[in-house]
Amino acid sequence: MKFYMGPEAWEPTVEDIVAAGHEQVERMEDAEVFINTMPNPRKIPQRTENIQWVQHCFTGVNQLIDAGIIADDGIPWCNSAGAFAKPVAEAALGLLLSQAHHHKAFALAATWDVANELDESQKWIYTQREPQKVAILGAGGIGKQLIKLLKPFGVHITAVNRSGRDVSGADESVAMDKAGHIWSESDVIVNILPLTKETDKLVDAQKFAQMKTSALFINVGRGSTVVTDDLVDALRNSEIAGAGLEVMDPEPLPDGHPLYELPNCTMTPHMAASAGVAQFHMGEVFNANAAAWEKGEEMPTQVDAEAGY
Amino acid sequence: MKFYMGPEAWEPTVEDIVAAGHEQVERMEDAEVFINTMPNPRKIPQRTENIQWVQHCFTGVNQLIDAGIIADDGIPWCNSAGAFAKPVAEAALGLLLSQAHHHKAFALAATWDVANELDESQKWIYTQREPQKVAILGAGGIGKQLIKLLKPFGVHITAVNRSGRDVSGADESVAMDKAGHIWSESDVIVNILPLTKETDKLVDAQKFAQMKTSALFINVGRGSTVVTDDLVDALRNSEIAGAGLEVMDPEPLPDGHPLYELPNCTMTPHMAASAGVAQFHMGEVFNANAAAWEKGEEMPTQVDAEAGY
Repeated sequence: MKFYMGPEAWEPTVEDIVAAGHEQVERMEDAEVFINTMPNPRKIPQRTENIQWVQHCFTGVNQLIDAGIIADDGIPWCNSAGAFAKPVAEAALGLLLSQAHHHKAFALAATWDVANELDESQKWIYTQREPQKVAILGAGGIGKQLIKLLKPFGVHITAVNRSGRDVSGADESVAMDKAGHIWSESDVIVNILPLTKETDKLVDAQKFAQMKTSALFINVGRGSTVVTDDLVDALRNSEIAGAGLEVMDPEPLPDGHPLYELPNCTMTPHMAASAGVAQFHMGEVFNANAAAWEKGEEMPTQVDAEAGY
Repeated sequence: MKFYMGPEAWEPTVEDIVAAGHEQVERMEDAEVFINTMPNPRKIPQRTENIQWVQHCFTGVNQLIDAGIIADDGIPWCNSAGAFAKPVAEAALGLLLSQAHHHKAFALAATWDVANELDESQKWIYTQREPQKVAILGAGGIGKQLIKLLKPFGVHITAVNRSGRDVSGADESVAMDKAGHIWSESDVIVNILPLTKETDKLVDAQKFAQMKTSALFINVGRGSTVVTDDLVDALRNSEIAGAGLEVMDPEPLPDGHPLYELPNCTMTPHMAASAGVAQFHMGEVFNANAAAWEKGEEMPTQVDAEAGY
């Protein structure tokens, strides 16, 4: 297909799309598809009449639906769902291992005096006696990739998703509404939940109270699925052993926020799914959508304006 | 075989040995094998005449050879070689990912102001365009385990060992004296070298100068294989991107040492191969040695007093 990518053309993405047989054009007027690289809804270039569908290079589309830019009776929009599976899975494993082995605690202590204490309380992910039980909440593309990275550790993986459909590689797959046991039984809980009415503030004081005191809680989904003040309390009071956060609520996390000082809270500033990474994966997402479009099939990442994603 | 484990009997180890059909006895006088859990050579219990061989629960035996406790004309001693493959490999991957994604830099900065800078300079281990090139120096049991953990990331692995013998899972295996190219070509260098005359202070200013400025250097071998002051300079001057250290020279690293403050140096206080971990793996090491002894074969971890390990 003839595509226009802008306002900025991402070079690696263009290469991957051209390699699949599509043709890049310099003006939107000459294109069949518009690939949008502008995150700010108010700055997205005005669409010309010839555009048949739009590939949006970001995942979140709520603002575009609210603004009427994406509508059920308009042309199809696709988002970047799935593009960040590998980087976000890598980020999750990094936070998990870093927190398990007390990297932040040692960095903040800056003294060998804590060595014995850190050794005795560190957590091992590989199997010593029994496999560590890892629950993945919201196990979609990122979850599947994380399962691949966790496999060599020999952990037991419970994948939790809305429907309970089997997730490839998981030892057990359960539906969210039947997953009550995972809070108390897991050694590691990885939260990759999207933000919906059901998941908003889902992880609260009650959930932390159910978790093992040795449990690690990792969040690479959305910050607002967690009640931050409850997490701070749980970490301060050792209700859980530690947390690894790529996302928080609020973001940016303000200077002086207690999470910064907590030695058992390892963090990264929401940088696993950035544009710097997306450019290496958007080509694949677009190519799959274009192939489906050309066959008259449903495009894999087409947005449902009614559902909101 | 009848074994006495002391001065302290490690419960998980005893369980694993008994499960293999051996019998624990309470007094060394009644045993065929003595399993020693005392690291301090001067405090090792006096051996009784009935003991046929000794299983030492630690890896380093230089002091015992120097003190004449282990001698070529004495009874065989076995060490714990191989017992720490899984924990040390896990520690290495944790340090690698934590440093790649700037966990320490964000912890020390304690402000979202650094988010863009950290995002732009973070390193991804999974493949974006070309696979990351990882060199493993001293690729034995730990190296093989690390290769398993790295496999799902799709990296290219060069295993470096003394002989150049093929290492299972590596893309390429080369002998140490033919590995000159790895310093300049690797994206990640993981050092698992033992301390010998050849490796003492091997990694120095000259080596750091050869490395890519984007390279990460991980050390889970021995601290003295690296010239610490040269590493500090390389990190300060951005000659390399970062380091992840489980071992340092000196240990304990004194308070106020510059490595503590460097945001691009992630550290753990030599706690990957501790007694807390060994208890889960010594049973397997002992059982393999005992099986070989009973068949009259060479025991897998028998110490060669002449060679020094």
